[in-house]
Amino acid sequence: MKAGEPGMLKKIAETIGNADNIAILPHVAADGDAIGSCLALASVLSDMGKKVSVLMEEKIPQLYEFLPAIELSSVYNGESIGYDLAVALDCGDIERLGSRREVFEKAPVTVNIDHHTTNTGFAQYDHVDISASATGEIVFELLEHMDAKPGKAASTCLYTAIASDTGGFRYSNTTSRSLITCSRLIKEGADAAYISKKIFETTTLSKVKLTGEAINSLELYENGKIAVMTLTMQAMKRAGASDDDSEGIINTARDIVGVETAALIKEKENGDIKVSLRSNDYVDVSEIARKYSGGGHKRAAGFTVRGGNMEKIISLLLQDIKEML
Amino acid sequence: MKAGEPGMLKKIAETIGNADNIAILPHVAADGDAIGSCLALASVLSDMGKKVSVLMEEKIPQLYEFLPAIELSSVYNGESIGYDLAVALDCGDIERLGSRREVFEKAPVTVNIDHHTTNTGFAQYDHVDISASATGEIVFELLEHMDAKPGKAASTCLYTAIASDTGGFRYSNTTSRSLITCSRLIKEGADAAYISKKIFETTTLSKVKLTGEAINSLELYENGKIAVMTLTMQAMKRAGASDDDSEGIINTARDIVGVETAALIKEKENGDIKVSLRSNDYVDVSEIARKYSGGGHKRAAGFTVRGGNMEKIISLLLQDIKEML
Repeated sequence: MKAGEPGMLKKIAETIGNADNIAILPHVAADGDAIGSCLALASVLSDMGKKVSVLMEEKIPQLYEFLPAIELSSVYNGESIGYDLAVALDCGDIERLGSRREVFEKAPVTVNIDHHTTNTGFAQYDHVDISASATGEIVFELLEHMDAKPGKAASTCLYTAIASDTGGFRYSNTTSRSLITCSRLIKEGADAAYISKKIFETTTLSKVKLTGEAINSLELYENGKIAVMTLTMQAMKRAGASDDDSEGIINTARDIVGVETAALIKEKENGDIKVSLRSNDYVDVSEIARKYSGGGHKRAAGFTVRGGNMEKIISLLLQDIKEML
Repeated sequence: MKAGEPGMLKKIAETIGNADNIAILPHVAADGDAIGSCLALASVLSDMGKKVSVLMEEKIPQLYEFLPAIELSSVYNGESIGYDLAVALDCGDIERLGSRREVFEKAPVTVNIDHHTTNTGFAQYDHVDISASATGEIVFELLEHMDAKPGKAASTCLYTAIASDTGGFRYSNTTSRSLITCSRLIKEGADAAYISKKIFETTTLSKVKLTGEAINSLELYENGKIAVMTLTMQAMKRAGASDDDSEGIINTARDIVGVETAALIKEKENGDIKVSLRSNDYVDVSEIARKYSGGGHKRAAGFTVRGGNMEKIISLLLQDIKEML
């Protein structure tokens, strides 16, 4: 059936109502929206007396272990039959189900609910609402069609889903609807401060130390319009950091008053140099990245140089950025 | 008249409607809620053709210079007469008007709109709504009573007011009403991502460097349950930091997974040592602070030691915290 067809969500609500043993599937490397949406729906269906399993590709990240209904989830163990309905949530295409694709393909009835523009419409019943900031927003609407009150547990999960995907209502996908939905979730029992603390105010020692290393390396150029930070392998080791720990650190440089373009130059274990670029108002950093066979957007881009020399890359990069200031 | 009396806000709306030359007064050291609320009301009244002045005690901080209607504000120059109405916003008592108290006292009609429990009710017309997360929420309601659409300018100011006072919807004062109000402000033209970038993703070089200094000093104790950071005068000088720059830095230590209690120990210019304490779940840091004649809340407290020795204070403090773990 066609994605986004009017009445589709109502039809899906009925379909779910008729099922008894339901598999709910987030995308691989599930994030806050995928996990929150799945656990919310599972919690409500379980309260209705249905048998429901949230099948994960990987263990739920520690960050989301506070979520209620987590006991309804488990890492997929290869048992793909017995479900009379499979529901994929926040999943753009069938490949994003990973090894759980077989669960989906063997289920007699399948549903796909998502907000990604790229969704391929791979189920019997597809509902893709690209105006939603998060799949959590659509699941909230689905529960209304099911005449099901989310209650405290599902509200906590859906609030987490929406807050995650909007960066705590700070990203440009934040809409009036995101806030209305979350205001209703608070009424149903979600605790905004508790959830925000869990998902936004939790960091690790290695990440904090790596941030310190990056700040120690910070250099400003061109009257403070360019900020460059470097992370050598020694710095990574001193911080006890893994590759993931450097995520977001570049924002520290980008957010300094007066900075237009920020660069984070990171040495990788194999000797490659990874360059991340951010800009605030007018420099199109994707243009610079493309010059080095990288890619990205106007305000966030990057590229990797095979076995490069840090000093040399910085000097080339400064030249490139200066030309765009 | 009594604070919070039903119909008071309607009465205030009428009073404002009857005035022609209006002074709007935020509290001294005005924050995002005070400034946003004042500029929003000023913008709407100016659009109605009224003469309106937002009188500031100090210059509006750089952080809020992006706000529309800022041209309706000026630092108070001592001219206290000629206004037929004075409106104090977000101001708990008349002393918080500073030198602008004379404007308020000389005005023939006075209004006080606030959300602080401690508000003394110092005007002819007082409306104190302690259920509001921010004065901005009450001003939004006031505009409804005035049948005035906020428009993009006032919506931007009110969104800033509410987002500021709720820490971007992360503090425990965040309510369903905060989010509903902000969802309506987005509909009226407020840009959530733009405002969030302006007020939450802007920092200074000295603050970033000081954060680096604090991270460099970070030590964990008791299996990572206690995190201690220090900022010596030398560190402050290296970072080119002022006293304000250390605000919020302690959260970096508090937010590390596993940490229950965090301390930031800061040397002051006069040789005093300022200790800030934070806890996550169960340690009552106000108890520790009181032992050293300080004060605060369970999860955030502090004290100052006259001409103390850093090492000695850390060792005493570790003893105190260990006893409460």
